[in-house]
This record gives sequence, C-alpha cells and structure tokens, in this order.
Amino acid sequence: MYNQKAYELGANGSCIRELYAYGRQRAALIGDENVFDFTQGNPSNPTPKKVEETVQSLMADMNPLELHGYTSAVGDPAARQAIADDLNARFDAGASADELFLCCGTTPALAAVFGALTVPGAQIVALAPFFPEYRPLAEGAGASFVVVPPDIPDFQIPMGALEAALTEHTVAVIVNSPNNPAGTVYTEKTLRALAQLLEEKSRQYGHPIYIVADEPYRELTYDGVQTPFIPNIYPNTVVCYSYSKSLTLAGERIGYVYVPKQAQDSKALYAAVSGTARAIGHICAPSLWQKVIARCAHLRPDMTAYDKNRRALYEGLTAAGYEVAKPQGAFYLFVKAPDGDAMAFAERAKNMDIILVPGNDFGCSAYCRLCYCVSYEKLQRSLPRFRELIESYR
Amino acid sequence: MYNQKAYELGANGSCIRELYAYGRQRAALIGDENVFDFTQGNPSNPTPKKVEETVQSLMADMNPLELHGYTSAVGDPAARQAIADDLNARFDAGASADELFLCCGTTPALAAVFGALTVPGAQIVALAPFFPEYRPLAEGAGASFVVVPPDIPDFQIPMGALEAALTEHTVAVIVNSPNNPAGTVYTEKTLRALAQLLEEKSRQYGHPIYIVADEPYRELTYDGVQTPFIPNIYPNTVVCYSYSKSLTLAGERIGYVYVPKQAQDSKALYAAVSGTARAIGHICAPSLWQKVIARCAHLRPDMTAYDKNRRALYEGLTAAGYEVAKPQGAFYLFVKAPDGDAMAFAERAKNMDIILVPGNDFGCSAYCRLCYCVSYEKLQRSLPRFRELIESYR
Repeated sequence: MYNQKAYELGANGSCIRELYAYGRQRAALIGDENVFDFTQGNPSNPTPKKVEETVQSLMADMNPLELHGYTSAVGDPAARQAIADDLNARFDAGASADELFLCCGTTPALAAVFGALTVPGAQIVALAPFFPEYRPLAEGAGASFVVVPPDIPDFQIPMGALEAALTEHTVAVIVNSPNNPAGTVYTEKTLRALAQLLEEKSRQYGHPIYIVADEPYRELTYDGVQTPFIPNIYPNTVVCYSYSKSLTLAGERIGYVYVPKQAQDSKALYAAVSGTARAIGHICAPSLWQKVIARCAHLRPDMTAYDKNRRALYEGLTAAGYEVAKPQGAFYLFVKAPDGDAMAFAERAKNMDIILVPGNDFGCSAYCRLCYCVSYEKLQRSLPRFRELIESYR
Repeated sequence: MYNQKAYELGANGSCIRELYAYGRQRAALIGDENVFDFTQGNPSNPTPKKVEETVQSLMADMNPLELHGYTSAVGDPAARQAIADDLNARFDAGASADELFLCCGTTPALAAVFGALTVPGAQIVALAPFFPEYRPLAEGAGASFVVVPPDIPDFQIPMGALEAALTEHTVAVIVNSPNNPAGTVYTEKTLRALAQLLEEKSRQYGHPIYIVADEPYRELTYDGVQTPFIPNIYPNTVVCYSYSKSLTLAGERIGYVYVPKQAQDSKALYAAVSGTARAIGHICAPSLWQKVIARCAHLRPDMTAYDKNRRALYEGLTAAGYEVAKPQGAFYLFVKAPDGDAMAFAERAKNMDIILVPGNDFGCSAYCRLCYCVSYEKLQRSLPRFRELIESYR
C-alpha cells in the first residue's frame, strides 16, 4: 500500500541519471579515459576561491550556534539584502530583501512557486526543449503540464504555437534562459513579444499569466551576450535562481525565489510560496551557505574554460557536418541526430562510448544534449569519434 | 490568482515563530537579559568539535568539485554506509546503505514519506501532543490528518483512543519519541502495545499500517533512558531522522529516511519516497554535510548542559507548585496551566516577559511548552517569576 504515482516516479529515475550510471559502469570496465560522457550537468569550473575562503573564515570566526542554527524560513536577512543589492546594481531591479525567499536551489523553488500558482484546473506551460523535471514538479503541485513544441532550429519561442497553447486555465509559462538543454538565450526581442502575448492573454482571461523564470544559468553566457532580466520586461514574473552553476555549488542547495513587488498580488503570492514550501518540508536553506551568499552574492563565474570547450565542440561538430544549435549560454550543446531520431543516435553513440542524452524527455526528439563540463583534452579526443559517428550515417 | 490554502499556510506562520518574533521585539525594547524566551527549539549545545574539524579538513583536502558537487538523489554512498554501520552497531538493525535516503532534515523526510504512503482517502494519525507541522505536511501530501487526544498526565499512548481512531483508511501513525513538546520517551512497553494493536488492525484491514518514527531527538535522553529502536519492535516502521539536534546542525538541513528491508513492500516504498521527494524538488541533501556525516555519524551529543537545565527547571517549577510532565528526552518541558487554559496562561506569562508556547497547536490545550535551550543563568533567574506567575492564580 503506497502511492503508485510516487512509486513510478521513484522507480523510473531520470533518463540522464541512468545514462550517467551506465557511463560509470562502462568506465569501470574499459577505463574512464575511454568513456566520453556528456550526460551530467555537474559544473566543472572550480568553486571560486573567495567562496572557499568565506567558508573557512565563517568557520573560524562565527559562533557555531549562529552559523549552523535555524534561520527564519524566508532566510537570513543579510543574505537576502546582499541578493537584492546585487540585483539592483546589475539590473536596476528595485528589489528589496522581503521579496526574496531563500531555498534549497531552484528545484524546490519551482515546486514552491508551482504550488503557489496552482488553483483547481490550472495549466502550467513549458516551452520545448525544457528541463524534464518541470513535469513531475508541475504535476506534483496539481497542475496540468502543457508542452509547446520547439522552434527548430533557432530555439527561440514559437509565438503562434504558444498562443494556441494558452487557455483561461493557464497560470504560468516557464521560461528557462539560458536554456537547458539547448544552450540558447532568449533575445530581448523574443521576450518582448512573449510579454506582449501574455499581457493580451492575461487581459482576455481576466487574470495574470505569470512567467516563472528558471535562471540557474543566468550568468553563464558567451560572446558578450547578456541574459535579459525578465521582471524588467514583464512585471508578472517570478524568478527562481540557484548558485549551483554560477558559484559551482550544485550539491550544496542554495538558491532563491524572487517575487518582485511589481508583480500582481505579489505579497499574497510570496505568502503562498512560503506556504507551499512549508507543506513540502522547507525549514530554511542550509544556514552556512546562506551566510556565504551574504558575502558572495556579487561574484560572477569565470567562463574561460567553458567557453574554450564550447568553441571546440561547436566548431568540431559543425565541421564534421552536424547541425548544432549555437550555444550562447549554460554549458550544454544541442546537436541534431543526422536522421532526426535522437534515441537511435544516442544508442549508436553509446556503442562508440560517447554518452549523450536524447532530447525526447526534453520535448525534442530530433536532438541530443551534450554537457561540455568535461576536460578539454577529453573533449578534443572525442571529436574523431563524432566524425566516425556521422560517417556511419552516410 | 494564487492557491488560497498555500497563501493561508504562508500568511499564518506558526505560533512558535510569532512568539519568538515577539520575544525579539521585546528584547530590543527592554534588553535581552530581561526576556525569558522559552519558545525556540534551536539547540544550544555547541556543535561538536569533531564536526567543525571535519568541515575544515574536507575544505582543506577534498577536491571542491567533488565536495560541493551533486551527489546521487539518494545520497553519498559513504554517508549512507556510515549511518547503516552506526544503526547496526547500536541497535543490531541489520540496516544497509540502500535502505537509506539522505535528505534536508526530518521535515522534508516526513513530506516524502507521507507522500509515499498516501493513497486516495488515506488518513495519517498523530498522537497528541504532536509537532504542529505534521498537519500541513500530511494534508499537503493529500491525506486526512487524524488526532488522538493526549494521555494526560503520563503522555504515553492512550491505546483505547488510538484504537477508536484507526480505520481501514489509516496508512500510518506518527510516533515522535522523545517527544516534542512533552519531552517524554515512549517506553518499550508502550511501543509493544502499540505494535500489537497495529498488527491486529493491519490484519483486520488487510494492509499494513506503518509507523512513521520521527526521531530528531533519538539520542537526547536523560536518567539513563534509552529510546527504543522502533523497527526492532514493529517491522513496518519508516524512520525519519535528522542531525539537527544531535550534532547541533539545525540550520544545515541534513537527515535521512530509513526504510528497513523487513518493512512490507520496503523496496516499493523506498522508490515511492524517492519519487515524492523528486516531485517536491529534492535533488540531494547538502553535499558538504553529507560528507561530514560520512565521518561523524557515530558521534553522540553531550547532554550535560541540557540535563542541568532540565533538572533546574523541573525542580524549580515542581517546587513552585506546577504540574509538569517529567522530561526524559529532547529539550522541552510541558507544564500544565494552573487553571487548565494554556492560551490564557501563556498570555499571563507573556505579560511578565516569560514567553511560552501554548499547547493548543500541539493538540493539548491545557499545557504549555518550554524549550530549555537557554543559559543556565537565565533559567535560574526565571524561576522567581514562575513563582510569581503561579501565585497570581491563587
């Protein structure tokens, strides 16, 4: 006697984790250097020195009862203020500490926000390609999950298809830019068109359709591209952010929800986020890491190594004849299966010990995702295999 | 447009937090030394030196990418093995690493377990007095929350009342021992009677009624009392544990779910716990703290300071004429309102700057909770006021 849906969700782990586990097995068999595993989004940039030093200084100087004790559920005031200051300095956001809710990374942030927005019959819209966990999170909150097909090959937002997907039950559209898995960044033009559409539809249906901006990759951009700050374009935006990628703290679970005061019903929405968080077991974000953020919220990632990998992979694959979405952010590259069948392509790659994630769970069955958080040396050694792989299609 | 129930849960914060906030305000006004705040269960024992040293040594020696990177959702294998080893050494539990699921403390552990056990129409039973957050957690999982009235003045389990509360829809009984708020420890005799009742009822209804053992205070006991290890008494037990109190890491969010292999459907139940955790945004427990637990799972709290406070408070209040449940565990003391009205008693105490939590939200409206994680000096100074307070009832 147990919940069948929960069982299935637990028993059928994610495709990414299964492929990663296969890669580990294979590495044990033939040596790690011979397995080209592009599955896991575990950042490979070292954690900034300043972060490490801050931990050490907090451990040395701060009263451990305060350092390791409960904070309020919404989070340490100094950490929230530091985040607000940083948003204000960068985006002129007009943010204040009481619009921020610290939590254990973006995933529980999304769970809290989805729960806060879900009324009976609610629909939450995702734009393919999308992070697969959105589905269980939205459904877990009690919403229906609606997918808008991808805008191939640019991976911006297909406004016509989105418009067709919106209904009076739509409460939110998830926007993930820089995008996992495509590595694309929505342009300001795209976002303005999105804002216009959502404003019209909100008026038509008589209630706001919020943007839920999932932004763990906000600062991970290339070629001088800046991620537009969505609340400045569309006020009814709730931001979910994590330091997992920007400060290479993925396992430490520290991030936040930002409910800007200009969003409709912002105070009530903030309370509903707190309430949902409470019902799913949130007490506070890890306290040591809250104190670290109070001192490190202004740090930015060094993109040098990721950029070097990105260029080598993009150029190598393009030269070999692959169709690739040019990544401008995050650390993913989305490559088209030569015959448009991502599952078969990933399988064929696997037989050559190249491990890719087929895009099917991301809502895009013609592409595979590569995470280039690997060593440059290994990435270079993978290129001849990729050439062999595409040759096999000719 | 937001979820009304989530809003209410967020807007109406917990009574404990409100009283604590009042205490902080009052301290700002009249000086902290003049406010006798017994509200918050923030442990006051220092974090063990060994824990602090382990953090420092991990920070100095371990590759930060590994130290701060994602672990698997179920948790670091070495940490799970260390916990299993510790359970086996202490309780001959027969535990193995794959029965353990690390998470961000007991609260999300409970959310995951309640979600795993909740089928349509499910009822989850709490034994008053109980930790108030059980209600939003159970209801958030979709279960009905059923309360069994307290067994006054012993605060063991009233078997008749419990039997009357069990139905074919009961999926679990929450057992919290040492108890928050009463500080009592269920005796082995109590637990054997409970096991017998649940076995009978499970047979009668044709499905197991699980015990969900919420055990953040397991090691915090006095007078040589040991907390019986419930899976050894009743196999259909799922344990939720946290290092918040035993290692004074309340804010760091590290704990686990243990689904013993002897529990019915244990593998499916473990998968359902993972699945629920996934749907509420669990990625992994904070990775640094997982690595700490891998090396520190065997540590035990030093109870000296808590015990000194406990004795002084128990003796002081009893001598003044209060009826007190003798605490044998945790760091709470449950005191009866002289006229049986806890709300009025707490209000009268508040006017004398003694801040207590009325038991109403705990399912016991005649008692107030005191947390004695305060300085011994302050505790001593509070006793004359408590005498004045009871005098005011005469």
